[in-house]
Amino acid sequence: MADGLGDKLAAPIVARVALIGLGLIGSSLARVMRRKNIAHTIVAADASEDVCARVRELALADDVTTSLEEAVRDADLVILCVPVGASGAVAERIGPHLKAGAILSDVGSVKGAVVTAVQPHLPEGVHLLPAHPVAGTEYSGPDAGFATLFLNRWCIVTPPNGHTDEQALATLVEVWRAAGSNVEVMAPQHHDLVLAITSHVPHLIAYNIVGTADDLEQVTESEVIKFSAGGFRDFTRIAASDPTMWRDVFLHNKDAVLDVLGRFNEDLAALQRMIRWGDGQSLFDFFTRTRAIRRGIIAAGQETAAPDFGRRGSGE
Amino acid sequence: MADGLGDKLAAPIVARVALIGLGLIGSSLARVMRRKNIAHTIVAADASEDVCARVRELALADDVTTSLEEAVRDADLVILCVPVGASGAVAERIGPHLKAGAILSDVGSVKGAVVTAVQPHLPEGVHLLPAHPVAGTEYSGPDAGFATLFLNRWCIVTPPNGHTDEQALATLVEVWRAAGSNVEVMAPQHHDLVLAITSHVPHLIAYNIVGTADDLEQVTESEVIKFSAGGFRDFTRIAASDPTMWRDVFLHNKDAVLDVLGRFNEDLAALQRMIRWGDGQSLFDFFTRTRAIRRGIIAAGQETAAPDFGRRGSGE
Repeated sequence: MADGLGDKLAAPIVARVALIGLGLIGSSLARVMRRKNIAHTIVAADASEDVCARVRELALADDVTTSLEEAVRDADLVILCVPVGASGAVAERIGPHLKAGAILSDVGSVKGAVVTAVQPHLPEGVHLLPAHPVAGTEYSGPDAGFATLFLNRWCIVTPPNGHTDEQALATLVEVWRAAGSNVEVMAPQHHDLVLAITSHVPHLIAYNIVGTADDLEQVTESEVIKFSAGGFRDFTRIAASDPTMWRDVFLHNKDAVLDVLGRFNEDLAALQRMIRWGDGQSLFDFFTRTRAIRRGIIAAGQETAAPDFGRRGSGE
Repeated sequence: MADGLGDKLAAPIVARVALIGLGLIGSSLARVMRRKNIAHTIVAADASEDVCARVRELALADDVTTSLEEAVRDADLVILCVPVGASGAVAERIGPHLKAGAILSDVGSVKGAVVTAVQPHLPEGVHLLPAHPVAGTEYSGPDAGFATLFLNRWCIVTPPNGHTDEQALATLVEVWRAAGSNVEVMAPQHHDLVLAITSHVPHLIAYNIVGTADDLEQVTESEVIKFSAGGFRDFTRIAASDPTMWRDVFLHNKDAVLDVLGRFNEDLAALQRMIRWGDGQSLFDFFTRTRAIRRGIIAAGQETAAPDFGRRGSGE
């Protein structure tokens, strides 16, 4: 089909999947699972009555419920699509109701803390296999999702040390591949360091520069907005992401974030010094080196080569 | 016409324009001036033989020459489209050849330093009117330009104190409006502060985070590239901008950049402390506040509301 996701599967990979949390990621999963016939039955559970009502209107699942316990009963695959900080409490509620042999996964942006919070609540025979689809937009909620969100993006699966069931891993990998993702397997701790540099610290400094601009007395908000096409507006996109999700990311990946942030600060101090002392050659060399990485990202299909992200049309 | 630029002008605004430097901005100006009939005759001058050859192939101007002196002779409007650091030397070369009553303008991202560098080389009767179109892409050179680059973007005109000829100002404003821009007039020093926050410091921290990622030994370049969709890739776009241009910006807007960077560092230290001490409420409040600015930018027509800059299709 024209959406790039290819044909429906001849047979579902799992019989019954329960998605807990129907925000951007959960609702996108529901959509692509239906679109590709990944699961025979999709159960959607969300603690919010409003979200459940909207999910019913959008017809995203076969069953929709506010009862997490009911949702996971008989499910072969349960995917937590909630902010990282909520994972432990949700696991505590659903743990006793999970069926033997079920796979429990999630989509959180932090993995070490999820393993620590979730594992104690799981009965014997349930396979914990955390995962993180590196995909998203700056929008939130069940209306923001779409079936191609994961297409050509990477999903990182992070089996907790010594707890990998090969069959469960194969099933989860198959699910994400069917959703259009490439899959990589790594340890939770390594994931947390990689994402600190590719996602968490970039979000932090984006939030920060937007805050700095907002506080600058000599420059009006109207001026910041008018002249944002000079570069600033690129930062505002990720600084518009869901505050709850990002609060939880920083609270639960503290060590790696502070480590990478320390290096960022060191490097920035060096650039600051080059500017103060007028060291044009070092600035030029530095700015030349950073060009190469973008070419790599475009070549790897993770970014558009179109100028300005191809976003002609803002206001035009 | 469908490009949004509207009809050609019935009569040109200026008889003869000379564009010095045919990179992204100069070549875009040549294109929109032709497209809109802004100038009767367009002369393109570039010190590089290769650039001149390409400008001839693309038929961007009526005359193309490597002689800056020849280009400006008899020109009513001369626009320097060179890196900020080259403005003084170019002004020194062309100064004696400018005709009385001519307007000398530029497109540099720094304005105070341009006034200082250019003014001493101008004969009596030439009107210096620096300007800065806040528009661009991460690409460089005459092939990167396009006629709609300035459409719905802002152009800031910065008359040097006490040297504004009203007729010259009206003409330059008319030229930029015809190119599709909105025009704002402000003092050079205020421009430099506004752009430090909306453009220069954002570029610096984008270059910096890309450098930090490149240096991180525990994370491979391949991992940075694969998982860049988590936010990092947004920064690589502006970190791929022209190194010469950006070296010159930082060397020539040192005070404002260091001032804004000092505030950025203070603010980042506060966020760092919230993370270290697990202050979730303050993080949440901060991340909520920064969402509003993006809504303002979208409402002002300076940005697309489409998720992910509307860049679906990278690699798909």
